[in-house]
Amino acid sequence: MRIAVDTLGGDFAPFEILKGVGEAILSGAFQPDELLLVGPTDVITKQLQEMGLSEIPPIRHTEVFIAGDEKPVVGLRAKPDASIALCVQAVQAGEAGGLIAFGNTGATVAAATMGLGMLAGIRRPAIAVTMLGRSGRFVLLDAGANPTPKAEHLFQYSLMGSAYAKDLLGHNTPRIGLLNIGGEASKGSDVLKSCYTALEQSSLNFIGNVEGNHLFFGQAEVFVADGFVGNMVLKVVEGFAEYLVGAASSQDSSTGVKETLRQLLGAADFSEIGGATLLGVNGVVLIGHGRSTASSVLPALEAARQDIQVGVNKHILESLAAHQNEAPIVS
Amino acid sequence: MRIAVDTLGGDFAPFEILKGVGEAILSGAFQPDELLLVGPTDVITKQLQEMGLSEIPPIRHTEVFIAGDEKPVVGLRAKPDASIALCVQAVQAGEAGGLIAFGNTGATVAAATMGLGMLAGIRRPAIAVTMLGRSGRFVLLDAGANPTPKAEHLFQYSLMGSAYAKDLLGHNTPRIGLLNIGGEASKGSDVLKSCYTALEQSSLNFIGNVEGNHLFFGQAEVFVADGFVGNMVLKVVEGFAEYLVGAASSQDSSTGVKETLRQLLGAADFSEIGGATLLGVNGVVLIGHGRSTASSVLPALEAARQDIQVGVNKHILESLAAHQNEAPIVS
Repeated sequence: MRIAVDTLGGDFAPFEILKGVGEAILSGAFQPDELLLVGPTDVITKQLQEMGLSEIPPIRHTEVFIAGDEKPVVGLRAKPDASIALCVQAVQAGEAGGLIAFGNTGATVAAATMGLGMLAGIRRPAIAVTMLGRSGRFVLLDAGANPTPKAEHLFQYSLMGSAYAKDLLGHNTPRIGLLNIGGEASKGSDVLKSCYTALEQSSLNFIGNVEGNHLFFGQAEVFVADGFVGNMVLKVVEGFAEYLVGAASSQDSSTGVKETLRQLLGAADFSEIGGATLLGVNGVVLIGHGRSTASSVLPALEAARQDIQVGVNKHILESLAAHQNEAPIVS
Repeated sequence: MRIAVDTLGGDFAPFEILKGVGEAILSGAFQPDELLLVGPTDVITKQLQEMGLSEIPPIRHTEVFIAGDEKPVVGLRAKPDASIALCVQAVQAGEAGGLIAFGNTGATVAAATMGLGMLAGIRRPAIAVTMLGRSGRFVLLDAGANPTPKAEHLFQYSLMGSAYAKDLLGHNTPRIGLLNIGGEASKGSDVLKSCYTALEQSSLNFIGNVEGNHLFFGQAEVFVADGFVGNMVLKVVEGFAEYLVGAASSQDSSTGVKETLRQLLGAADFSEIGGATLLGVNGVVLIGHGRSTASSVLPALEAARQDIQVGVNKHILESLAAHQNEAPIVS
């Protein structure tokens, strides 16, 4: 069954997408007729011929696409021939068994939802990503399809993520964790609490709430979050990884790997920065990490001393006075 | 001015906290009478004497504390002599200029808020943490004091975070970013949108929405989020860092730092995992990263082929049928 490829979506489209397609065929991993390329016929043909392909995959011609910063639904309505729309049409018509797209995520989700419809009984789509942790790959969903799901949607994400982890990662009975800011059932929004209760009473393999610091430690194979939190988690991990790669590059390469990481990562740890400051109360309150050992105490003490000396509370009050008419109206 | 130290809070209290206190004094960084130790007199005296301290800091005796898993307000009500409550009392009475605590964060926030009260005009406290990025330290708040703030609270976090970054990190006019899942003003919840509008119209140095992947790249000095998102971000970074340190330790130490990081981090990147799968729609849809280059195409194609072959949608429908009476009621 063919896979439709949106060659016009993505920051480096079409060149890099076509280069990747060409390499996939030249490597023997894919046959040309396993693909359906959606994009400008001349550009596609020229680039793939230049790469030395003797046979060009079938092409669905279009020169129209939804830009990365375009409003998905508005864009799709104005551009019925947009590459992502034609990819979806190909799947809908059975000409392709699936599609890949590197463009505007919102447009991909909207085009797929409107064009293909939902699976019977599923109410909202979810974006599932897999990441690598200490115990192998795990699934995080929703990574951004729906920032404000209801409890029922989260429940269905659990179910979908579980099927996905079973099929793709080979876990027999994937453990499901709800991403939350505490382990207790009483933590988080009403939506999370309601989903917690339903999952606990269900026959799904629910292990309870899981905090962000446990994500990479193999406690579950499926982590469920709303699309806002899931997207934020994914992007923070991506950004942090990218930052570390850059920072490591600038280090002396003779330094041990572990040492360099410790150096880089220390700053993300309470023990190095002396604790978190509670702002807004009428006094100086430093909150250290619960896992603190002796080495955390001096930095915390120094941070408290500095907080007292600089008089941040005085400055907060001054700023409050200066901006008193600028705050949003409380509803 | 003295700093009150809660010696009974934290996973390794009191031993590690006292060890840290002893070292802070022995190193000359703090004089004994700069501290007020709150905890069991005999334990404190014995351990500090064993460390060779000639002068023991003043002690406020208590053997009572709020455990890490205790409900903060319930615990504080039942235990008026809890160490964190006595620390707050000392600040309230002017016997200490500030406090440090490594125990139950919720109890620290509740005790401080109730005991010290809020700064005049500030409606909710926020936990501010500093982290290190490419351009130096930056402030993230709220890291967990209030999971569901209103727009006015977020506005005040911006203002407090700005004063804090100015005082402690030395930024003259700190740039403020709202953590969101897109740059556009229309992104995120109504609360975020309302705060965005107020910040944009204010005279604060607001740079707009910032996504999670930009956190470490110096776009702002103050990142504002609700306590749920802020706590999640903090913990994900901590956990990821810890995971990387562990993973790096198990690598061949002769490998270059950069190479090891790339190996470790590759799995967090779309280009390695072939894209995100949109679950729930009636078809196979693979969403690649917008920044994809040629090397991302083959993994995405392979992921799509696998998705088609394993028939995950069929399994989702089966699971939906099996769990149809277990979902939360839609309100």
